[in-house]
Amino acid sequence: MAQHNAFYAQSGGVTAVINASACGVIEACREAPEHINKVYAGRNGIIGALTEELIDVSAESDETIAALRHTPGGAFGSCRYKLKDIDTHRAQYERLIEVFRAHDIRYFFYNGGGDSADTCLKVSQLSEKMGYPLTAIHVPKTVDNDLPITDCSPGFGSVAKYIATSTLEASLDIASMCATSTKVFVLEVMGRHAGWIAAAGGLAGQGEGEPPHVIIFPEVAFDRDAVMAKVDESVRKYGYCVIVVSEGARYEDGTFLADAGNTDAFGHRQLGGVAPTLAGMVKQDLGYKYHWAVADYLQRAARHLASRTDVEQAYAVGREAVALALAGKNSMMPAIRRITQAPYQWDVISAPLSEVANQEKFMPRDFISEDGFGITPACREYLAPLIQGEDFPPFKNGLPVVAKPELKQVEKRLPEFTL
Amino acid sequence: MAQHNAFYAQSGGVTAVINASACGVIEACREAPEHINKVYAGRNGIIGALTEELIDVSAESDETIAALRHTPGGAFGSCRYKLKDIDTHRAQYERLIEVFRAHDIRYFFYNGGGDSADTCLKVSQLSEKMGYPLTAIHVPKTVDNDLPITDCSPGFGSVAKYIATSTLEASLDIASMCATSTKVFVLEVMGRHAGWIAAAGGLAGQGEGEPPHVIIFPEVAFDRDAVMAKVDESVRKYGYCVIVVSEGARYEDGTFLADAGNTDAFGHRQLGGVAPTLAGMVKQDLGYKYHWAVADYLQRAARHLASRTDVEQAYAVGREAVALALAGKNSMMPAIRRITQAPYQWDVISAPLSEVANQEKFMPRDFISEDGFGITPACREYLAPLIQGEDFPPFKNGLPVVAKPELKQVEKRLPEFTL
Repeated sequence: MAQHNAFYAQSGGVTAVINASACGVIEACREAPEHINKVYAGRNGIIGALTEELIDVSAESDETIAALRHTPGGAFGSCRYKLKDIDTHRAQYERLIEVFRAHDIRYFFYNGGGDSADTCLKVSQLSEKMGYPLTAIHVPKTVDNDLPITDCSPGFGSVAKYIATSTLEASLDIASMCATSTKVFVLEVMGRHAGWIAAAGGLAGQGEGEPPHVIIFPEVAFDRDAVMAKVDESVRKYGYCVIVVSEGARYEDGTFLADAGNTDAFGHRQLGGVAPTLAGMVKQDLGYKYHWAVADYLQRAARHLASRTDVEQAYAVGREAVALALAGKNSMMPAIRRITQAPYQWDVISAPLSEVANQEKFMPRDFISEDGFGITPACREYLAPLIQGEDFPPFKNGLPVVAKPELKQVEKRLPEFTL
Repeated sequence: MAQHNAFYAQSGGVTAVINASACGVIEACREAPEHINKVYAGRNGIIGALTEELIDVSAESDETIAALRHTPGGAFGSCRYKLKDIDTHRAQYERLIEVFRAHDIRYFFYNGGGDSADTCLKVSQLSEKMGYPLTAIHVPKTVDNDLPITDCSPGFGSVAKYIATSTLEASLDIASMCATSTKVFVLEVMGRHAGWIAAAGGLAGQGEGEPPHVIIFPEVAFDRDAVMAKVDESVRKYGYCVIVVSEGARYEDGTFLADAGNTDAFGHRQLGGVAPTLAGMVKQDLGYKYHWAVADYLQRAARHLASRTDVEQAYAVGREAVALALAGKNSMMPAIRRITQAPYQWDVISAPLSEVANQEKFMPRDFISEDGFGITPACREYLAPLIQGEDFPPFKNGLPVVAKPELKQVEKRLPEFTL
């Protein structure tokens, strides 16, 4: 089998472990020199392929590639750039094939969520139509945990571990302070469409009265009176109340909590997220002193607290993507399969992209407790293995060590292309 | 020497390592059974002494006490309750002595910041006047790092490590996204009066252009135009800008940024902290897409990422407090002394409370760079050793293991007392 080059790109919001997948892809490619010559990475994701800004990954040392496994963020740059409709913007897709052809790229590894699975599929279909031999594999990644078929999405387990741990730690803080000070703590977490991450906060407590006392999911219409009654009940019973709220919390009519028509004097939408909005309601309705935190990027960048399970799965899907490509499987995605629950065992299977693209996996209703404010034992059973194990990065001078790739650019061979 | 009891209480905002000091105090007391009989802890701090709600620490197992070393929050409860002026509210102080007398408490260990050092001193002075033999030792603790004499305050090093690490990790996130998405990331940190914690964010980067690009200190009057010019410059030069802002950021006239006169339709002060306020300015003045995070309790509860140096110092001052008491030193505070810088070596000395109480240590002006947006090499040299070393807690089922003390209450012997 002849040697050709491979292309790898990161897409969408990055995670604590997307570089672990990159590490898996690159290391597996390096182990197959009889098939794969060089690995090129798209600078800033798929945009790098369109603009022919390719990073020569073969110039990076084995140590740098190994260090990707414990480096958060997207080492080659990612992008929020969805290729336009193939019928109206065919030129974009054709450009990709042109760049691939110019650099002898026959393997396309696209590391992202649902949108990129769709792009990956379309690129694969077009290359076939154009008679260009390309093997396109999607490498799953999303903190939102909403990819279908795969039991979980690499990236989610580490956010889940971070949120569960942070909820536990902050709960001990407020529990110590509540006698004379803060009574309500609100932690805002990611997940605009699904409550997976908020649900992970629920892992912090198990027994009766253990925080978090209230979880607010995007799946459950926000009822201010019901929430405030629950908060008040917690403060009266336990002395304090810990709330984990999804950024996607919304009213019955779909309006987001953070966008409830509040505008400043200039008519601009009011600043601030769900946490301060909710904290303000607590103050207004119940008069309790509050604190609130918004984890934002911290939660998905917290490689220092990654789930070992998640790191291993992210790395494994990267390696499996290469194995699939070398086995001639096209338009596929490696997926995690849960084999047994206790002990938790998993392996990597594969799924056709046609079954992955444009499908979203929502949280089952029976994962949310009847009152809408907690997780059920079924949810706990699903989530618990995903945060198992630690995989601390090496530290130097008190800080995590991260990969510092050279990002050497490959010489361009084609005319400029305007996005 | 006869046996008497000891009293330990936690005061003010808790930290990731205040329980490590508790562990030091309690373990050292247990090693001196010839002098110290039982250790009682104040439930919710000094309030527990006033209301005679004493926790019988001798009922806790050695394992539970050892586990305090890796448990964040305040295991016995803390409080924000400053004893009133001794001249006008002498009854409160007399009540403390009364409770101590009723329970044969001759050792008073008070674990807190500047205010509690002052209280500790006053209690000591009054007991002397009243002829009650009490040895009062203050155990230093504050994330604000503003205690005098001690080289650093136990609790600060762990927050510093958390903020430096989080800044580093989130910076890698935004660096990956900035080509097509977020250009500015704002991280709000604690420190209403001093910029020590904000300064710690500066440890994340060293070389030219490494984030954070802008640190906003309470010590430097906020100049919107100057800040926005710096942010814009960073985005143009590096593609993005990371800002670490202290919650205490303020204008020349002392007004806090977050309180800049913004009120909602009901005339309530606008919700939200400094981070969203600053992010809003970025959007308004520069038009850049932003993300912001508010770490709040997460930063001071993050025992999972504690500085080993900080844990060791917190534990050491706890033990040393007992040693001082047993040596008959009264009205003292153990303090950290920096012996050498490289390698970093420290020991514990002691300081009279009269020199500690009501003194605040501010950040030296030469720790802030000339333009006011960064830290100087002198600051870096001071801060660097404080975040050295990791001291990960044990984990079980993916979550940190924490102490679960029984908190058995000692039988009351006195009439009720109203606060």
